[in-house]
Amino acid sequence: MQKNSMLRIALAQINSVVGDLQGNFEKIDRHVQAAKASGCHLVAFPELTITGYPPEDLVLRQQFLQDQKEVLYDIVAQIEGIICIVGFVDIDKNRRYNSAAVLQNRTIKAVYHKIHLPNYSVFDEERYFEAGKTPMLFSLNGVKIGLSICEDIWIPDSVIETQVFDGGAEMILNISASPYSIHKSQERLTLMQSRAKKTHSVVAYVNLIGGQDELVFDGQSLIIGPHGNIRHAGIAFEEELIIHDIDVDIVRQSRNDPSFIQNKSSFKAVFPVCQRVTLDDETTPTDPAISTSIKIATLSFEEEIYKALLLGLHDYVHKNNFSQAVFGLSGGIDSALVATLAADALGPENVYGITMPSQYSSQGSVDDSIQLAQNCAINLKTFPIKDVFLQYLELFQETFAEREADVTEENLQARIRGNIVMALSNKFGWLALATGNKSEVSVGYCTIYGDMVGGFAPLKDVTKTMVYRLANYRNYRAGYDLIPQEIIDKAPSAELRPDQKDQDSLPPYDELDELLELYVEKRMSIVDIIAHGYKPETVQKIARLVDFNEYKRRQAAPGIKITPLAFGKDRRMPITCRYQER
Amino acid sequence: MQKNSMLRIALAQINSVVGDLQGNFEKIDRHVQAAKASGCHLVAFPELTITGYPPEDLVLRQQFLQDQKEVLYDIVAQIEGIICIVGFVDIDKNRRYNSAAVLQNRTIKAVYHKIHLPNYSVFDEERYFEAGKTPMLFSLNGVKIGLSICEDIWIPDSVIETQVFDGGAEMILNISASPYSIHKSQERLTLMQSRAKKTHSVVAYVNLIGGQDELVFDGQSLIIGPHGNIRHAGIAFEEELIIHDIDVDIVRQSRNDPSFIQNKSSFKAVFPVCQRVTLDDETTPTDPAISTSIKIATLSFEEEIYKALLLGLHDYVHKNNFSQAVFGLSGGIDSALVATLAADALGPENVYGITMPSQYSSQGSVDDSIQLAQNCAINLKTFPIKDVFLQYLELFQETFAEREADVTEENLQARIRGNIVMALSNKFGWLALATGNKSEVSVGYCTIYGDMVGGFAPLKDVTKTMVYRLANYRNYRAGYDLIPQEIIDKAPSAELRPDQKDQDSLPPYDELDELLELYVEKRMSIVDIIAHGYKPETVQKIARLVDFNEYKRRQAAPGIKITPLAFGKDRRMPITCRYQER
Repeated sequence: MQKNSMLRIALAQINSVVGDLQGNFEKIDRHVQAAKASGCHLVAFPELTITGYPPEDLVLRQQFLQDQKEVLYDIVAQIEGIICIVGFVDIDKNRRYNSAAVLQNRTIKAVYHKIHLPNYSVFDEERYFEAGKTPMLFSLNGVKIGLSICEDIWIPDSVIETQVFDGGAEMILNISASPYSIHKSQERLTLMQSRAKKTHSVVAYVNLIGGQDELVFDGQSLIIGPHGNIRHAGIAFEEELIIHDIDVDIVRQSRNDPSFIQNKSSFKAVFPVCQRVTLDDETTPTDPAISTSIKIATLSFEEEIYKALLLGLHDYVHKNNFSQAVFGLSGGIDSALVATLAADALGPENVYGITMPSQYSSQGSVDDSIQLAQNCAINLKTFPIKDVFLQYLELFQETFAEREADVTEENLQARIRGNIVMALSNKFGWLALATGNKSEVSVGYCTIYGDMVGGFAPLKDVTKTMVYRLANYRNYRAGYDLIPQEIIDKAPSAELRPDQKDQDSLPPYDELDELLELYVEKRMSIVDIIAHGYKPETVQKIARLVDFNEYKRRQAAPGIKITPLAFGKDRRMPITCRYQER
Repeated sequence: MQKNSMLRIALAQINSVVGDLQGNFEKIDRHVQAAKASGCHLVAFPELTITGYPPEDLVLRQQFLQDQKEVLYDIVAQIEGIICIVGFVDIDKNRRYNSAAVLQNRTIKAVYHKIHLPNYSVFDEERYFEAGKTPMLFSLNGVKIGLSICEDIWIPDSVIETQVFDGGAEMILNISASPYSIHKSQERLTLMQSRAKKTHSVVAYVNLIGGQDELVFDGQSLIIGPHGNIRHAGIAFEEELIIHDIDVDIVRQSRNDPSFIQNKSSFKAVFPVCQRVTLDDETTPTDPAISTSIKIATLSFEEEIYKALLLGLHDYVHKNNFSQAVFGLSGGIDSALVATLAADALGPENVYGITMPSQYSSQGSVDDSIQLAQNCAINLKTFPIKDVFLQYLELFQETFAEREADVTEENLQARIRGNIVMALSNKFGWLALATGNKSEVSVGYCTIYGDMVGGFAPLKDVTKTMVYRLANYRNYRAGYDLIPQEIIDKAPSAELRPDQKDQDSLPPYDELDELLELYVEKRMSIVDIIAHGYKPETVQKIARLVDFNEYKRRQAAPGIKITPLAFGKDRRMPITCRYQER
């Protein structure tokens, strides 16, 4: 290995757990030892490695801050013969910083404070952290490396350009916790390529994997060459220790290119000063150089989303110390998809599907559920709700005597089902799952304390249209109708009154989902949506339903964000709100 | 009225509604006309007057931003013969600013952009707004006024000092939306007094009133003289148009004082420039000068909290277009207090208390509820839950056969009660109220989808200890046992199994509430709490319960924040969290 130009780096794409300081320490240590055993000069971990991401208000607890600092010292004590970059919360003069420590020879050689703090979408980093002011560079055997954290690399003409054009960085190393959403990995790739090309640098980007409440992190770490070429693309939704040899000579040669000289000369300084650290390294990789072959496992659109849901569900269940799950199997498509997801994520023996037929349920629905449960090999139990329902009606006989049956009786049945699922959850320690999808939750086509009960809602951010696509994808992968075709073909119905169909009161789901994407995700005005050719009455009606049902969503179970804008902390609308857009 | 030193100002302490652009316009217009009729030179409204506060993600909708700007123009068109300061969202080069407009003669004379954006506790202003950079001063008939918005006045050595020491402001005018919490009004008064004294200025501070989801704004606007003397203290929790004559000569005289000269000379400039606007005013107040007598209606501690709860409850119900409310009357102290609150806030004829005795309920509980309902003159209905409960047990007979009765059966009864309350809510359009208190919700001593059901939880941030104090206060005010003494005296019990008492599994409530204040509100470490003399096992147990029950609170109804740290957006803890403080 040629001195001063070759570098063997490891990117540890790990699944940490928020608050699990001991568990995270052990995982970091294992990956440090593995990287060292492979002769790496350097191993880098994702953003806030030690605390897990996002730690939210945990970082407002002094004891937690102290404890995670202790774990940093425990890691420091293990570092010898390799350089380790690890994320933690630094405290300086009572201010907290989202930080990366550079460790070598049982010493903290330097600490970098994240400069750009995201405070939009699901992020609240300005609530927790002070912004750093000084970009950092460290050199390792003469190779100059610019270290940054997540958002830093997303902001143009700032940290990265300073490191390269002012500081002479040859490699950009970014440690990140970037949550998954649809098309996000392509967006990240495009960004990293453009940064690499503009600065003629190698970009090494390490991202977290794992589920954390409403977020799922997909990994897909990247190593990009100075011409924007993909040198390595990490696996999606799985842990991976990426080991890669980087020849910095390629970078150095490429910097004679006029485009680099022009980019450099047109860059205006943003920061008055950079922090510079020189590290001497005695490691010489003993193994043969690791192949730099391109390794990209591209997932299909549906496969990627399905995997996101699997990991999000698996991690919510296990990280909260559950192993089994229970939910209502209605004979509809949503609960069928939850059944395959739960079986795939938790093992079918740990999954309990419950059919709770009412007097309005079709025999077909029950039969379909039985077939589905057999196909998925999950446990099935049946509890007819009619007798309990009649008992409630008797209770209300006098009070409701002069009133027509209405949504009250429908909700009551949904709530009996909710009670049954919760009773099983309480008695046997199974985590209850809510099976509702994003389209329903958007317009309030769901019963609060009824079908909305559950500790977790795997389809909370999955539109009805996407539910169908995922069901078809799963059947395709199974090679047969794992989810019976009858379930896919039947018209959606809550089966809470005779012959009820969702489309009686809603537009067809493909149209509804388009409208919701425009109104909710893209925040498009009603005027503009109508200009796209939708019927004004329909657009107005759907917008009203979305606005009105904020109160239900506020009490909804958490679920996995897969779209660019999910309900939850991504969309903070007031409940009390008299604004009616026209 | 002497020219160049006397100023008649109006502070319009109004109750705006988030998103109610037309309603807010009408309210602003009425107050402008009233101030004008009283010969005021100037009328000032609270922060973000036009949108209501906090508008949250509404301000991310372009159409809303346009619409509120239109309302500003509608207001501008009404302004003649008076200067009006009104809060709105300004947009400049696609950036949003939390702004105050200075209106005169049907013209926008100037716009100020809030400089300090709170992004802690319940506030997310950096999510929505860019920070302004330039303090503003305007002069009116030769009197120099420094205008600022809420947080600007809380930050020392910044906006206010710049306006006075650099800009020569004689009056500090701050428009605010500062939510209520216990002791907050004293804190505000102390702050305003210290600002006035340090800068030898008159401070005029106008604050919002009204309930908005989990926040209640208390008004208590202030006019403070240059020696820190209270010139006027606005009413708490009520709308008020405060009209006050200010003699700026007193300020001018006081500035010969050495302490002013010293404060001014030791102030270091923070901002490179101020925005300065000169307004000519032809108004001469025609009425006799308004008395500057001090008017302070000090509320007792309990009275203040009770009023906060009343306004919060009233506004949540009415601003969401309900007029009636329903909740379970258990015979316990929490639901009794909710009964008096609801009767006082909504009128007793609009309140429905529901007794739902189980086989474990004492006859005393039912009798106490009947007496309470009679005293409060609220409606009472009874639905015994035993038959429905037995029907559920029959359903589970086989499945639960080999299991002991446990919390499952207790929760089931609580959920039957929840279903009954919700069925009445659905059938008759009454808003369901959850009656749980902060102590219970902290440690999870409540049943999700059971007693936690409801659209609003008036006692969500009221500790059990405070529930007793408020009950006694209300009885004292009534002059008799409005809440029967039996209810106050009995040991708290969920009555979900024979002879159940809360204190069987929890420490006494006074001790529990102390622990919760230290652990939750003060974020004190467990080590430090134990050092205060509490038993380590108890502290550990309570901390675990608080941490573990985050999932329940995430699905809880909104309720009124009255403490410095409430559950909800004030405390953003992860559900998935393996941290166990020791």
